[in-house]
Amino acid sequence: MEINLVSDTITKPSREMLVHMLNAKVGDDVYKQDPTVIELEAKVAEMFGMEAGLFFPSGTMANQTAIKLHTQPGEQLIADKYAHVYHYEGGGVSFNSGVSCCLLNGNRGMITAEQVAGAINDPEFYHSPLTSLVCVENTTNKGGGACYELEDLQKIKQVCDANNLKFHLDGARIWNALVAKKQDPKAFGKLFDTISVCLSKGLGAPIGSVLLADKATIHRALRIRKILGGGMRQVGYLAAAGIYALDNNMERLAEDHRRAKEIGEVLKKASWVASVEPVETNILIFSLVPNCIEKNLIELLKQKNISISSIGHGKLRIVTHLDYREVMHTYVLETLQKLV
Amino acid sequence: MEINLVSDTITKPSREMLVHMLNAKVGDDVYKQDPTVIELEAKVAEMFGMEAGLFFPSGTMANQTAIKLHTQPGEQLIADKYAHVYHYEGGGVSFNSGVSCCLLNGNRGMITAEQVAGAINDPEFYHSPLTSLVCVENTTNKGGGACYELEDLQKIKQVCDANNLKFHLDGARIWNALVAKKQDPKAFGKLFDTISVCLSKGLGAPIGSVLLADKATIHRALRIRKILGGGMRQVGYLAAAGIYALDNNMERLAEDHRRAKEIGEVLKKASWVASVEPVETNILIFSLVPNCIEKNLIELLKQKNISISSIGHGKLRIVTHLDYREVMHTYVLETLQKLV
Amino acid sequence: MEINLVSDTITKPSREMLVHMLNAKVGDDVYKQDPTVIELEAKVAEMFGMEAGLFFPSGTMANQTAIKLHTQPGEQLIADKYAHVYHYEGGGVSFNSGVSCCLLNGNRGMITAEQVAGAINDPEFYHSPLTSLVCVENTTNKGGGACYELEDLQKIKQVCDANNLKFHLDGARIWNALVAKKQDPKAFGKLFDTISVCLSKGLGAPIGSVLLADKATIHRALRIRKILGGGMRQVGYLAAAGIYALDNNMERLAEDHRRAKEIGEVLKKASWVASVEPVETNILIFSLVPNCIEKNLIELLKQKNISISSIGHGKLRIVTHLDYREVMHTYVLETLQKLV
Amino acid sequence: MEINLVSDTITKPSREMLVHMLNAKVGDDVYKQDPTVIELEAKVAEMFGMEAGLFFPSGTMANQTAIKLHTQPGEQLIADKYAHVYHYEGGGVSFNSGVSCCLLNGNRGMITAEQVAGAINDPEFYHSPLTSLVCVENTTNKGGGACYELEDLQKIKQVCDANNLKFHLDGARIWNALVAKKQDPKAFGKLFDTISVCLSKGLGAPIGSVLLADKATIHRALRIRKILGGGMRQVGYLAAAGIYALDNNMERLAEDHRRAKEIGEVLKKASWVASVEPVETNILIFSLVPNCIEKNLIELLKQKNISISSIGHGKLRIVTHLDYREVMHTYVLETLQKLV
Repeated sequence: MEINLVSDTITKPSREMLVHMLNAKVGDDVYKQDPTVIELEAKVAEMFGMEAGLFFPSGTMANQTAIKLHTQPGEQLIADKYAHVYHYEGGGVSFNSGVSCCLLNGNRGMITAEQVAGAINDPEFYHSPLTSLVCVENTTNKGGGACYELEDLQKIKQVCDANNLKFHLDGARIWNALVAKKQDPKAFGKLFDTISVCLSKGLGAPIGSVLLADKATIHRALRIRKILGGGMRQVGYLAAAGIYALDNNMERLAEDHRRAKEIGEVLKKASWVASVEPVETNILIFSLVPNCIEKNLIELLKQKNISISSIGHGKLRIVTHLDYREVMHTYVLETLQKLV
Repeated sequence: MEINLVSDTITKPSREMLVHMLNAKVGDDVYKQDPTVIELEAKVAEMFGMEAGLFFPSGTMANQTAIKLHTQPGEQLIADKYAHVYHYEGGGVSFNSGVSCCLLNGNRGMITAEQVAGAINDPEFYHSPLTSLVCVENTTNKGGGACYELEDLQKIKQVCDANNLKFHLDGARIWNALVAKKQDPKAFGKLFDTISVCLSKGLGAPIGSVLLADKATIHRALRIRKILGGGMRQVGYLAAAGIYALDNNMERLAEDHRRAKEIGEVLKKASWVASVEPVETNILIFSLVPNCIEKNLIELLKQKNISISSIGHGKLRIVTHLDYREVMHTYVLETLQKLV
Repeated sequence: MEINLVSDTITKPSREMLVHMLNAKVGDDVYKQDPTVIELEAKVAEMFGMEAGLFFPSGTMANQTAIKLHTQPGEQLIADKYAHVYHYEGGGVSFNSGVSCCLLNGNRGMITAEQVAGAINDPEFYHSPLTSLVCVENTTNKGGGACYELEDLQKIKQVCDANNLKFHLDGARIWNALVAKKQDPKAFGKLFDTISVCLSKGLGAPIGSVLLADKATIHRALRIRKILGGGMRQVGYLAAAGIYALDNNMERLAEDHRRAKEIGEVLKKASWVASVEPVETNILIFSLVPNCIEKNLIELLKQKNISISSIGHGKLRIVTHLDYREVMHTYVLETLQKLV
Repeated sequence: MEINLVSDTITKPSREMLVHMLNAKVGDDVYKQDPTVIELEAKVAEMFGMEAGLFFPSGTMANQTAIKLHTQPGEQLIADKYAHVYHYEGGGVSFNSGVSCCLLNGNRGMITAEQVAGAINDPEFYHSPLTSLVCVENTTNKGGGACYELEDLQKIKQVCDANNLKFHLDGARIWNALVAKKQDPKAFGKLFDTISVCLSKGLGAPIGSVLLADKATIHRALRIRKILGGGMRQVGYLAAAGIYALDNNMERLAEDHRRAKEIGEVLKKASWVASVEPVETNILIFSLVPNCIEKNLIELLKQKNISISSIGHGKLRIVTHLDYREVMHTYVLETLQKLV
């Protein structure tokens, strides 16, 4: 029994999901003739109360497209210092959009309206980049699965409106936030110019993200997706997995959250753990006491068939997911309790 | 019975291909842990005698990545005036790579070594862009499925070597050339720095292209693919379709070629056809006599359940493919013969 | 006596111009505090009836800034196949703006409204770049100093308006056109979104170009100029030369034109000349009879202290200018007449 | 008597410098035929013991060219959080080079080898940008004119060498460091791949920067300068000012430093000043006590004909320079002492 807690991206489709894929009606989506893709795009847009959606092969491409849609080269976006768009998209913000990042020192990956307001460059001072976009991540990845309060996002939205800034949500794990905070996706749809959501993390689809926006923006997004090479042919097979995932795998995210919290409780009591960050969803970040070496712990757990990963700066990360089942969980809790 | 002769990209997987997909072993390909993707990449590389391959969600992304790998912004590539990379990749050459195109007036989309040699900017004359890459397409799309003679490509390669230029093959339909000319893919592998091949055209897989090169170049390509957003998770399902297509759908391309030629013969005799370009593979381009209007012909055929398309400048295009079967072919030949 | 007919960029300031420079009032133009720069910018804008001007260190930067102002990366501009922006600005169109060029087969560097209309990509066909800008050059450099008729430009403008395209004039040598055709610069100001004019060619200033547009566009241009590194400090010394040039060196361009024509007449009669392109302004392009070798002619003239240059494809170029005086002209005419 | 302490960029050439400019021998530098430019480039290169130099219209363009020379789009550079290249070059790092910045929390604008080592992304982890360049500024502008110890730069160089990183010095005010620390410019030439130096700040020339590197790099820089639009014609007039400045205005920088320190001493004693940062060269940064408002102080001094500026975050900046003479200094010291 191999237990992989490295990421929720590693889940594999269930037999039911595969059958659903197999039976999908498909067409050439480059000509917008794939009915299943169209169904998925409409379904997600409807969920968030937004006008339109567009399917992407990756969350990176959905985010990169959103950033391009809202900016001109030379401009600057504001994000938290942990932002996925800055750290884990290959430098795409500057490669694809010629845009720089102003990184804020947020709390667990979350920034405040005050911080945003203080980071906007004076638009008349042409020596500095023009600030044109704010990106937030919810839940935060490097921030340990933290979720924003809606009111805090509303305050940032007000700063955006007052300063003519666009507002993008990297919602790769928005599903976890919706379940954990019992929030209405339509409340998010009202706040953001664009939202990217990911089907291949907690929801367990093999591939795919959807970008949401108004119709005119999605019309422009189609062009950017084409340029980046994200136009695919009979991609309804993947969209079908996404539809299945939305219909069947949302509610159960609460299980992932419970398990992550239970692991956190065990770790808090462990003598070799220095601190455990608050656990809100399916990501758990902790650090070791000084004489305990990260690499050794990872190796030790590996020998016990449990994979976890380091995220640098002395922090370790555990991610629960669809393929992490109760029997594994029992074993993991026991193993961690026994570990010295 | 709907007959779509617009493009060979519209084919849908057969039941056998779908079952092959369903049974694929998959993993997270972003971590290079998907065995089926690895198998496909190795299989295609081996076929062409090249060191390594990388799977892409589209031919556009494979081509764009190749261009980026071989150039710095501000440089120039040389291609035929019909080149797909110039016309149909959304302006990606300049968007993704900051590179300009020097377009040559080739023959049916094919350029000669002499033309290339005459188009290279003097590298010491810094007012003009530095020429750094030559791209050829085989078979040519807008050129009507024409195929290069190997010797002509070898001569271009010599010009490239003498002038320190990289050489890329857009082999979206290389399979058709291999079958039509009975050429050895390894002969192509020896000539080019990079080759992109497409699985979702004549071969009938739903999605996917592979970029081939030496190991060091593919290592760099992984980074570009990530930046463009082409890193996908459990993508082995798509790779499996590609493997099935290579094993089962290559030889039968000869059928597509025969059918295209037979349609060409009928068109040559039609009073309303001005000219038919030579038919070498599965693409057929023809033009109408002056008093005959393109749009009307397309509409007329549509009413008879046959879809074909215009490619501008008074030219019409017909593409045969896997889902265009003999019964359809008989009907198309009859319909065209009867048309006035 | 060295006679340089290679380019009109090689002129050196007269003593009077230098004294004018020396006495300029200057300030820090990065803070827009240089009164002489402000005076020049206003003077040129007023001349063309446009709202505002901005000083640049080069015509290349003025053109590149204009192109950036009117486009987003991935879009396409339309220009003549001889366009300076394509050939002689280092590939800047794609480097600085991520834009590609659709080159038309014009007449002596001049394109027609019909050609432009035929080259616009369908904005709904997202596979091809979005056409967003038309650039014309007047007079044409590689086209041999040819000048547009105003009516022909007006027709292009109508096509631009009907298709939502911006219209830029590369007016590096617009002064020669104004003098040769007795045109009113305000007529040009009405047609174009942006005009770049050059002070360091026929007008004889050492350095500098001015970009003209409406105020909002020039406001944005300031930011692009900063990014490209064109913000200079006490640059009023150079602006003063420009003001002097405009006040003193415009009318005399007719002399340059007369001399170019007279050289043309001599060349037409020479046995070693195959053809001489029509001479409208200060640039003259000619080609040699088959057995006569370009390099040899250039060398032969060099020995007689006359420098001219090749522009490739079997063409030679002669450019008359402020520092090419009557005594030199007499000598050149005699020398060419005697040459065998 | 207007006293401008806003920046050392506002100095105007003396009569002697102007005469030197007027008498310069010039040529067309785009063809590399301007002897005075060539002389200046050689002179500065020789000073720093580097192979070659290239003249630029601005320090921004020199820095931006250096960054482009050392990077490919998508890569990352490391710099201090106050870096001019990040804050005051219009977002050019991402616009011109497609590069992102990893900003370190240095001391007064200066970073350490340890900080650099800790900020390099693992080159095998392709999700994050490839780190390829380190930029340091000496003296630091936003850091208050602080100067590096040579040993600290040597340690950073070792980290660069060990990690295959290029090393660029933004030496806009390197002259102040050389004089303040009595350092040998050749020691800097040994450490850096490229150095940009500015002639229009403390040295008092109206315009111009020089980029230094080895010959092959400067050869490539010529192409980048062309693309950015920095190729100028008879630019020897400006180069002549630079030569004069190097010959006459270096030693006297010590005066600027003394005066800045003396102003600092007065400010330290003022009841309305909260803190004064250490003064090493000609830049002085201080902050006000809580109940004292920046804008009011600036206005109050303005009424007394003294201009100073805010640099945000509650900090004010004073810069001494060539045009700030002893009589002004006496008046400024007296005025500040009397101020309540």
